[in-house]
Amino acid sequence: MAAMSSTSPGYSDPLLHHLLTAVAPLDARAMQEAEARQAQLTKPAGALGVLEETSVRLCGIQRTCPPRPLAKPVVAVFAADHGVHARGVTPWPQEVTASMIENFRAGGAAVNVLARQVGAEVYVVDMGVNADVAADDRVLDRKIRRGTSDLAAGPAMTRDEAAAGVFLGADVAQQLVAAGHDCLLTGDMGIANTTASAALIAALTGAEAADVTGRGTGIDDPTHAHKISIVKVVLERRPASEDPLETLASVGGFEHAGLVGFVLAAAAMGVPVVLDGLIAGAAALVVQAIAPGALDYCFAGHRSAEPGHRVALQHLGLRPLVDLDLRLGEGTGATLAFPLVEAAGATLREMATFDAAGVARK
Amino acid sequence: MAAMSSTSPGYSDPLLHHLLTAVAPLDARAMQEAEARQAQLTKPAGALGVLEETSVRLCGIQRTCPPRPLAKPVVAVFAADHGVHARGVTPWPQEVTASMIENFRAGGAAVNVLARQVGAEVYVVDMGVNADVAADDRVLDRKIRRGTSDLAAGPAMTRDEAAAGVFLGADVAQQLVAAGHDCLLTGDMGIANTTASAALIAALTGAEAADVTGRGTGIDDPTHAHKISIVKVVLERRPASEDPLETLASVGGFEHAGLVGFVLAAAAMGVPVVLDGLIAGAAALVVQAIAPGALDYCFAGHRSAEPGHRVALQHLGLRPLVDLDLRLGEGTGATLAFPLVEAAGATLREMATFDAAGVARK
Repeated sequence: MAAMSSTSPGYSDPLLHHLLTAVAPLDARAMQEAEARQAQLTKPAGALGVLEETSVRLCGIQRTCPPRPLAKPVVAVFAADHGVHARGVTPWPQEVTASMIENFRAGGAAVNVLARQVGAEVYVVDMGVNADVAADDRVLDRKIRRGTSDLAAGPAMTRDEAAAGVFLGADVAQQLVAAGHDCLLTGDMGIANTTASAALIAALTGAEAADVTGRGTGIDDPTHAHKISIVKVVLERRPASEDPLETLASVGGFEHAGLVGFVLAAAAMGVPVVLDGLIAGAAALVVQAIAPGALDYCFAGHRSAEPGHRVALQHLGLRPLVDLDLRLGEGTGATLAFPLVEAAGATLREMATFDAAGVARK
Repeated sequence: MAAMSSTSPGYSDPLLHHLLTAVAPLDARAMQEAEARQAQLTKPAGALGVLEETSVRLCGIQRTCPPRPLAKPVVAVFAADHGVHARGVTPWPQEVTASMIENFRAGGAAVNVLARQVGAEVYVVDMGVNADVAADDRVLDRKIRRGTSDLAAGPAMTRDEAAAGVFLGADVAQQLVAAGHDCLLTGDMGIANTTASAALIAALTGAEAADVTGRGTGIDDPTHAHKISIVKVVLERRPASEDPLETLASVGGFEHAGLVGFVLAAAAMGVPVVLDGLIAGAAALVVQAIAPGALDYCFAGHRSAEPGHRVALQHLGLRPLVDLDLRLGEGTGATLAFPLVEAAGATLREMATFDAAGVARK
């Protein structure tokens, strides 16, 4: 991995530079066609609300109108452990990350159930779980290290590790698209990942620690206060860098790094992404900081009950499709939202026009 | 139809009395089992948010835990015309109601597209369209009259007509359930139906006309002001009766009457209902007034962009599953929400427990 350029944020890293320059603007012509077509469909103008914008953006992403069906969705669950777990930010043991991977492998986790409902496959990407995780055709070994360092004591990872995570995540996206997947859904698993996400969100939005640090799996008041203080102190000691990858390395997790690359590569390949909740939102802020155009390829699957996610979505300018107080992660929100994205595209493909249906207009 | 009892709201109408007394409370034992099971599934308590309550209620409705899959959903689009159309409350010609029925028949309307996405069948129920509508196996002739009377000039229908609409709607539900449908989604079509819905909502919630009367298909300011004034004046002249059916007859539409019976019969048969938007919300307020327990069988599919729907949902105490500024009706919101209800049930059926998956708990 190339060292950071002295002319930050220049991204002299050749692979990263390539990834960033490969993200094209959405296809304006396809979007204009989609808008014109929405106006001819048998419904009052605008009556399909957010589905209309969604359908238009899908055309811009796929560079064609109407959009192709999203026939082969896939959830990639980026998993990693966090050194800050040692600070007691959650009552859940770190071993749960690895045992949940076995639950994903066996098909028993929430995301597996929801993915089966929508016909999506589920892959797990071990970006840095603090345990031996057996790789197979659904559990991909991309382990950088067995958990990040404690972000409260120093940077969670080196900048090179962060960059490596980005490239590994990009590679996962590339492999999934090569396998025919036409819509990428983000997922995540990692005990203590809401602490790292809160720190990333605070660093990249300028929000106060108390406004972005939630209760994660449901922690009590003292643990919550402790978690807020950790986020606050680390940002005082190591405020956001001008180089977003440096910020990611300072307070993020290996799964965040993977998600950044996953989103960038999807955008570069012209494939839509449905983002999950807090962890994806934190990663998307890094994406926004280094390649804002890549966000045009992203739909916000849902708004989590975590306060930091609300802040992240506002900063990203994304409106969530589902808003049901979920706070589970794994990709559950993205998976629930996927049919809404596909339904939006289907209206453009299948609805009759006023002329074709012989329906009078006002 | 029996005349109204002098001891209003006694419902001496034998069929209505039968329908109301047939609605059982939800099965408390199945709901307790569902809550206990949710607590054992591999996720933090409450992390699936609204899906958890939804899954618990589904068990209460089906009187079993876990709930059976909702394998055969159906949308019933209750269609009717409105005499108040003559007052110029909308720029759309009344003929659009009938031509949209042909669009539903041909499968080209938004609700057809969305229903195909979720595997739901679509039926149209002509409750009172002001045109000759050919009946077939998907377009059911239950026409009471060719459009209601102008609610601004006098009652929209007689109480007997309202009661007849309720029974016809109940009969549709019964036939669909007999045909194997296990989840009923409400739909509606009728030019000027937002005016009648606004009047019903104002009458049954006590809200001001201006707070519940929206722009429907997208009317201009003068038409909107005119529409508000019609709703306001009619409620001054004919305030809500103590008998909800009398109120329904005064300002409602034949489709509202049909929807009331549809929901009551579904509840009486123990079948879940997913409500669509404004028109369904107005009908559900009538249901609430005569048999509040029937609402326990209803999920609010979505929150429409129409202001009256927000008021209705608050009064009903229902939280919408989808909130995407739709204002199309037809059943589009209910159909988009259906997979969320089914996903909630699937978590109880398919997710692993902590013990079974060998995942440690905090």
